[in-house]
Amino acid sequence: MTENELKQTLKSDVDVIDGALKRYMRRSDNLQSPIYEAMEYSLFAGGKRLRPVLMTECAKMCGGDINEILPFACAMEMIHTYSLIHDDLPAMDNDDLRRGKPTNHIKYGEATAILAGDALLNKAFEIMTEYGGGAKNALKAINIIAKSSGTEGMIGGQVIDILSEGKSIDLDTLKYLHSMKTGAIIRSSCVCGALLSGEEDTASVDVFALNLGIAFQIRDDILDVIGTEAQLGKPIGSDEEENKTTYVTLLGLQKAEELVKSYSRAAKDALAPYGKKADFLLALTDYLVNREK
Amino acid sequence: MTENELKQTLKSDVDVIDGALKRYMRRSDNLQSPIYEAMEYSLFAGGKRLRPVLMTECAKMCGGDINEILPFACAMEMIHTYSLIHDDLPAMDNDDLRRGKPTNHIKYGEATAILAGDALLNKAFEIMTEYGGGAKNALKAINIIAKSSGTEGMIGGQVIDILSEGKSIDLDTLKYLHSMKTGAIIRSSCVCGALLSGEEDTASVDVFALNLGIAFQIRDDILDVIGTEAQLGKPIGSDEEENKTTYVTLLGLQKAEELVKSYSRAAKDALAPYGKKADFLLALTDYLVNREK
Repeated sequence: MTENELKQTLKSDVDVIDGALKRYMRRSDNLQSPIYEAMEYSLFAGGKRLRPVLMTECAKMCGGDINEILPFACAMEMIHTYSLIHDDLPAMDNDDLRRGKPTNHIKYGEATAILAGDALLNKAFEIMTEYGGGAKNALKAINIIAKSSGTEGMIGGQVIDILSEGKSIDLDTLKYLHSMKTGAIIRSSCVCGALLSGEEDTASVDVFALNLGIAFQIRDDILDVIGTEAQLGKPIGSDEEENKTTYVTLLGLQKAEELVKSYSRAAKDALAPYGKKADFLLALTDYLVNREK
Repeated sequence: MTENELKQTLKSDVDVIDGALKRYMRRSDNLQSPIYEAMEYSLFAGGKRLRPVLMTECAKMCGGDINEILPFACAMEMIHTYSLIHDDLPAMDNDDLRRGKPTNHIKYGEATAILAGDALLNKAFEIMTEYGGGAKNALKAINIIAKSSGTEGMIGGQVIDILSEGKSIDLDTLKYLHSMKTGAIIRSSCVCGALLSGEEDTASVDVFALNLGIAFQIRDDILDVIGTEAQLGKPIGSDEEENKTTYVTLLGLQKAEELVKSYSRAAKDALAPYGKKADFLLALTDYLVNREK
């Protein structure tokens, strides 16, 4: 697959996802409608749509019907977005900028940002249960997604992150933290893409997602050191400035780059059973772990 | 039904619900486990368990199996508790006391309180999808619950509350605010109790819940004026102090008391089709609208 073909498919996936997100955000004109503006501000702030794209493409690889998957794919983006809004709050990471724009609480105030985050998490479950009933294994998939975003998943990772503030942590803890904070919903996105398409054995897809998640996170840490502020839309070197332990601070740049290669290879190897049907996900993996932003 | 019989059934319901809540909060011993302490602190802070009791009793009235209903009943309490934790935050109502104890963020810090709230909302959907699959209409019930706690329900009410701060609002707005903020999840608790028990026509239960919710809220406003701090576990007169519009500030104490009576009568009338099977809910309605705390 050429980079051009990859980018075309990616753009077409993102267009479908954005269209669905807009439909799901339809609202009545009532007293609470200002909250939708705050939700949409962050939901349409230029995210890569990584999680919904992964779910969509895992579903395609397994022969699924994309229309049945879309509510779940969009739910993943809502969950991801809510976590960013809450992470940015003054009591959490206290960030003013996200993707080059003022963070939600800077734009709308803290109270609205808290509620906009709550509302996006809630909306994720609203749309899965409202529009997702036709997909295979719907209830089981919602359960996997809920666990992946909860205390034994993403929120668990945020908790460890908060508790580790100002402490140096070892590699095992760092790996565990990221397996929760970013890894868990990347895994559930992929696994549920397969499961909702009727795939009975989701183990290969899970191994793919697990390794991709780690490679992706290490690349993130590398970009914080070698990227430019303009590319990333946020200050670079922020990890070092905040004394954050990252793969780069623990292992150095060269070793971190080697790890990205080996984890991404493991990710791709896991998709061997899917043969040609995995072509896009293989190309996407290379694209993600070599990205500049 | 005597008050003693009522209190015995109520205590037995609450014991069953508390037992289930404890089981659902089981956790592994891992790095993120401190978050469970913060979640449990608020979950077991002496709440009345009104929503899960209503769901349980509506289910009983409709011939449902309580074991199948419990995950949903506990989910309602988790959703209610998360909303209180977030409502109490400095950026929201900035309350230091709740049920006579320090609020979650006073006890654990703001970051943990934000995450504990997020985690309880998330956990509600985890347990419904993990343990609720056996109940009738499970997916539909989860959808009704999700909508009732979202932007067109409870969160919508919180938004209006925030936006109305320092403004005087009229009776229609106040009614709409409460129909969202407290009314919506009281309604979904009752309606889903019936629906999950296989009840096809939930209209009577819905009318009951709608009217009970209003009566309950007006009684709450009255208690803020005539209650004592020791009974309520929070400072009395706080509504007036914060210039909050309430049913009492808009209508006066006497008219508010009349409204409690007429709404609770409408609630009870709605249960006529259930005959003797509604006895407990009728007695509970009287008990709730005459409560001193």
